[in-house]
Amino acid sequence: MVIVLNQHISPDQKRFLRDFLQGRGYQIREITGEEETIFGAVGPSTLDVREVEVLPGVQRVVPLTKPFKLVSREFKPEDTVVSVGPVRIGAGRVSLIAGPCAVESEDQMMRAGEAAADAGAVMLRGGAFKPRTSPYAFQGLGERGLEILKKAGESLGLPVVSEVVSAEHLTMMRGYVDCFQIGARNMQNFELLKSVGGMGMPVILKRGAAARIEEWLMAAEYLMAHGTDQIILCERGIRTFETYTRNSLDISSIPVVKKLSHLPVIVDPSHATGIRDKVLPVALGAVAAGADGLIVEIHPNPEEALSDGAQSLYPEQFEKLSGDIQALCPVLGKELN
Amino acid sequence: MVIVLNQHISPDQKRFLRDFLQGRGYQIREITGEEETIFGAVGPSTLDVREVEVLPGVQRVVPLTKPFKLVSREFKPEDTVVSVGPVRIGAGRVSLIAGPCAVESEDQMMRAGEAAADAGAVMLRGGAFKPRTSPYAFQGLGERGLEILKKAGESLGLPVVSEVVSAEHLTMMRGYVDCFQIGARNMQNFELLKSVGGMGMPVILKRGAAARIEEWLMAAEYLMAHGTDQIILCERGIRTFETYTRNSLDISSIPVVKKLSHLPVIVDPSHATGIRDKVLPVALGAVAAGADGLIVEIHPNPEEALSDGAQSLYPEQFEKLSGDIQALCPVLGKELN
Amino acid sequence: MVIVLNQHISPDQKRFLRDFLQGRGYQIREITGEEETIFGAVGPSTLDVREVEVLPGVQRVVPLTKPFKLVSREFKPEDTVVSVGPVRIGAGRVSLIAGPCAVESEDQMMRAGEAAADAGAVMLRGGAFKPRTSPYAFQGLGERGLEILKKAGESLGLPVVSEVVSAEHLTMMRGYVDCFQIGARNMQNFELLKSVGGMGMPVILKRGAAARIEEWLMAAEYLMAHGTDQIILCERGIRTFETYTRNSLDISSIPVVKKLSHLPVIVDPSHATGIRDKVLPVALGAVAAGADGLIVEIHPNPEEALSDGAQSLYPEQFEKLSGDIQALCPVLGKELN
Amino acid sequence: MVIVLNQHISPDQKRFLRDFLQGRGYQIREITGEEETIFGAVGPSTLDVREVEVLPGVQRVVPLTKPFKLVSREFKPEDTVVSVGPVRIGAGRVSLIAGPCAVESEDQMMRAGEAAADAGAVMLRGGAFKPRTSPYAFQGLGERGLEILKKAGESLGLPVVSEVVSAEHLTMMRGYVDCFQIGARNMQNFELLKSVGGMGMPVILKRGAAARIEEWLMAAEYLMAHGTDQIILCERGIRTFETYTRNSLDISSIPVVKKLSHLPVIVDPSHATGIRDKVLPVALGAVAAGADGLIVEIHPNPEEALSDGAQSLYPEQFEKLSGDIQALCPVLGKELN
Repeated sequence: MVIVLNQHISPDQKRFLRDFLQGRGYQIREITGEEETIFGAVGPSTLDVREVEVLPGVQRVVPLTKPFKLVSREFKPEDTVVSVGPVRIGAGRVSLIAGPCAVESEDQMMRAGEAAADAGAVMLRGGAFKPRTSPYAFQGLGERGLEILKKAGESLGLPVVSEVVSAEHLTMMRGYVDCFQIGARNMQNFELLKSVGGMGMPVILKRGAAARIEEWLMAAEYLMAHGTDQIILCERGIRTFETYTRNSLDISSIPVVKKLSHLPVIVDPSHATGIRDKVLPVALGAVAAGADGLIVEIHPNPEEALSDGAQSLYPEQFEKLSGDIQALCPVLGKELN
Repeated sequence: MVIVLNQHISPDQKRFLRDFLQGRGYQIREITGEEETIFGAVGPSTLDVREVEVLPGVQRVVPLTKPFKLVSREFKPEDTVVSVGPVRIGAGRVSLIAGPCAVESEDQMMRAGEAAADAGAVMLRGGAFKPRTSPYAFQGLGERGLEILKKAGESLGLPVVSEVVSAEHLTMMRGYVDCFQIGARNMQNFELLKSVGGMGMPVILKRGAAARIEEWLMAAEYLMAHGTDQIILCERGIRTFETYTRNSLDISSIPVVKKLSHLPVIVDPSHATGIRDKVLPVALGAVAAGADGLIVEIHPNPEEALSDGAQSLYPEQFEKLSGDIQALCPVLGKELN
Repeated sequence: MVIVLNQHISPDQKRFLRDFLQGRGYQIREITGEEETIFGAVGPSTLDVREVEVLPGVQRVVPLTKPFKLVSREFKPEDTVVSVGPVRIGAGRVSLIAGPCAVESEDQMMRAGEAAADAGAVMLRGGAFKPRTSPYAFQGLGERGLEILKKAGESLGLPVVSEVVSAEHLTMMRGYVDCFQIGARNMQNFELLKSVGGMGMPVILKRGAAARIEEWLMAAEYLMAHGTDQIILCERGIRTFETYTRNSLDISSIPVVKKLSHLPVIVDPSHATGIRDKVLPVALGAVAAGADGLIVEIHPNPEEALSDGAQSLYPEQFEKLSGDIQALCPVLGKELN
Repeated sequence: MVIVLNQHISPDQKRFLRDFLQGRGYQIREITGEEETIFGAVGPSTLDVREVEVLPGVQRVVPLTKPFKLVSREFKPEDTVVSVGPVRIGAGRVSLIAGPCAVESEDQMMRAGEAAADAGAVMLRGGAFKPRTSPYAFQGLGERGLEILKKAGESLGLPVVSEVVSAEHLTMMRGYVDCFQIGARNMQNFELLKSVGGMGMPVILKRGAAARIEEWLMAAEYLMAHGTDQIILCERGIRTFETYTRNSLDISSIPVVKKLSHLPVIVDPSHATGIRDKVLPVALGAVAAGADGLIVEIHPNPEEALSDGAQSLYPEQFEKLSGDIQALCPVLGKELN
């Protein structure tokens, strides 16, 4: 870290500061300029910079090291490829994951699943435990929903992913899903991250609506530190002042994350926009910007959907999206999974 | 809800829309102006407006009813006063809650508690399970921390509050704390909200860093719908583009919430600013704007704190804050609790 | 507009409200439901909804009409194609505009211009009046810069665009440029909008860093109401809490604007990201999402640039970008201009 | 500045970097730790850090010096007191500035002015050139409005302030106003800042709705570098994702700015909240947090206001506000001006 000293720091304050830092394992080098004096301090990165910032004689403290380790490119330069059953996410492929927001019935799930499979999806999604803003809204079918999802996946030969909202469900869910999903609202539910990490299974980790990229990677660090290295990051839009769309897709996060980390990044254009006719252009944009895949909400009959119908694609829209991505892949030197 | 129709909506589309809404229990009234035609629809408020917005011939849909019920002023016009042991929060009092970010040792907790009590705090805070951005940071003493907190509270005759991060801890925690706290990162951890609500005990509910006021009140609605009406809302700053402070205290949220809801609102100036010398002015501002209390981080020796030392007040700073609020109360027609 | 009444509105308040609105030309229709009563009011859209919201007995007011007229799709359903000299922007083309952030010298401008032209750019950009955050930073060459820009354009047979920062410069600038640019910081400099609109020439209107889409379109409405219909909207990133990039490109704004308005939309990936190696992926994403073109900063020698060197592409990077877009165009059913 | 090097930087890259920085006047000191190597570089602060960040072998660059000079506490440790006619703003006073959003007529201005004066305001405000989002909204009375404002001020013995929106108006306006106001939308209209600075008169500089504190101070630096040191900073709310209020008052900015700069800071609670019944609590909060004054919109008859009626106080509300602040001042060790 670098500590910018006050111009009028006293010798006593300087000594105290030096001792404080050395006592915590830092090596100090002083650099004196015409207008400013700084301490360059290298050492363990566990000290919160704000704890130095409040010491007398200190003007500002600037952290130097990134706080994440295991998920960083420095730790592992080559791309991670995540395997979910036979499917491989990352490394030059564009993978489509699709399915309904919530599993509602066998018929609905089967029809959505067939539409997904027909258009080239390699994994099925379907929510069984739905985190809803209102306590009065449909909260999902629970374990029954997972049964239905699993049955659809087996029938179509596709692995399945579903959101986990409580550590208590993990053992039960392991019998049904091939991949866990951690939702945006739970991105910093650290207890859940620890428990899911401990399962050692593939995880899709959504970015919180107000999470900085660094915090998102720290959440992945939690998963990895607790036992999983099969992590798929998922950008799903951040909250901004704009009100026309539900969220604002942070498209730059794709190249930023791919530079900082070895983990694959997919995009959820359904939540990012919140409205059906914006999903396709934004999804194409995300793939063109380097996303390793998409997770898309589709529904055989969106008008009847019990949740998020407004952002669910019709089967024929998903087919169009898949076709467009197929055409786009050669331009990017990639292949549709 | 109000549906603004497209200028060129076809009679068929109009009929479909009318049937769709009436089939869901809405009464429709058409209003035709020179430039626009609208449907006014009154009925049950469970339909997601976006599900109407995507129907053919619809230009925009505007919701009319607020989604929260039990926490609203309409439901209960008079102020709720929350009782935590002998302490009453709300109704013309300014209540100070103070203590360390994390319980670190008996000595540290006792010294912080004494400083809090001496300066007029009516409740002690102390974290035992700490949600930390980094998996490598100090995560709290767990149950041992709660024992220490309880002991300090009993010794000083003050009720205690601590953050709950997992539903699995609730039964155990009930033996130690008088009030639960739900942290900002868990504000939309709905499983936790349901479980905590079911305990029927007092709860401090922090606003999420990216939560709109409406979502914050919906989280309180979860608690109330599941069994607790002893809810203290806590504004602790929202995330904005400003980088000088850790968060930006949304001071307007105090009068906004007090108009929309009957629940008391306190402010956490420590997290809102993140830096010690900004805590006092912002805390005073919050009380002047109508907050029913403050929850403040203090530490007998902030330089040695294991977490959030930079934003913890020295005992003498807290004493000064308490004195200033004491002087401010008569101006506001309130009394320091 | 729709006015939601308080449950306990008095007959007098209701009468006053009705008179107030009718006196301002509104027709009122009352709709009474079980939980709420609303007034549907259609009429002139010049009344600020907040002025109704504060009247006694009113709970909420909801505006129905969009405030923009001339720039809306309702006003003009077909796409506007903007002509800048021989170049046509919009209508199935992807147009590349490129050049240095600031014109620095004849040599620099000429070399940047050649690189732009060689790679297929159809218009040159170059700043002569630079709005800089610091008063001590390079502020541009002024009129001399425009001379150089014009000369480069003539020599390469390309029209040129440059930013205008003051109405006083307009007459002078008209002698040099084919298109004006209004920068993000001046998007709501209404005096400038009025003056530029009055010139009747093509304008690139950048979105302000904190402007909602509606405000951006209202700024275009100013231009159009004062005499120009040759407007190119330019998305250049909005300010969010994310700090890895200079701004966050709001990619959804492209399909949103194309639905709301008939005007073409281009994207500035240089300012949106602020860092060179993020420009290419984000630029491709923007085109895939439907942008009608790009405005890109390039420099023959970015390390020596007097402003924004960090986000300027090397000539060979721009060539690569152009090639990628060329390959992308058939997928989108478009052609590179 | 501090440059964090890539772990695998080559000797050639290191040499190039060293030469690059030394060639621009920097002194370099290398600090090697176990995990990282950094260059500490002290020298002139005119180099954009991003220009170093893109050089080969560089991982990150961290700026050390604040970019503002003249407005900083380091440059001038004691508080600036701004004199507008006989009124002094800053230094232990709380100053109230009040008047209508827009001057509408002699009668309206006179009645608003009397209400302001009666309640203890020391300066009158009144807009003559109104920057309005819509080109179809009332744009102000222009010079006629200034005549009316001046007449009211003279009649009541109070100095007056009005917003300037174009440099072309400055000479004319000087004949009418005692203080210029630069609005939030023009905070980075640098041409206007230069011209207003050159007048050498007092200026109220509003913070832009998306301006970081540093940019706000840089705008003040423009004014000061061009000739005015009579600058009053005005916080008026920033744009966030919250939609209940028009803006979100950044109350922490008051203590932050007072530490960074010697200039006085006032608050505009009218624009910060946008709705009348939130103005009073937020205004009190701002004064308690250390604001040197308030600028408040009042109107003799808000329902008839031609602009911003919804946020204008009734005369009796302003009187109540003034009384509350009078009571608050002794608590803060201040006096109402």
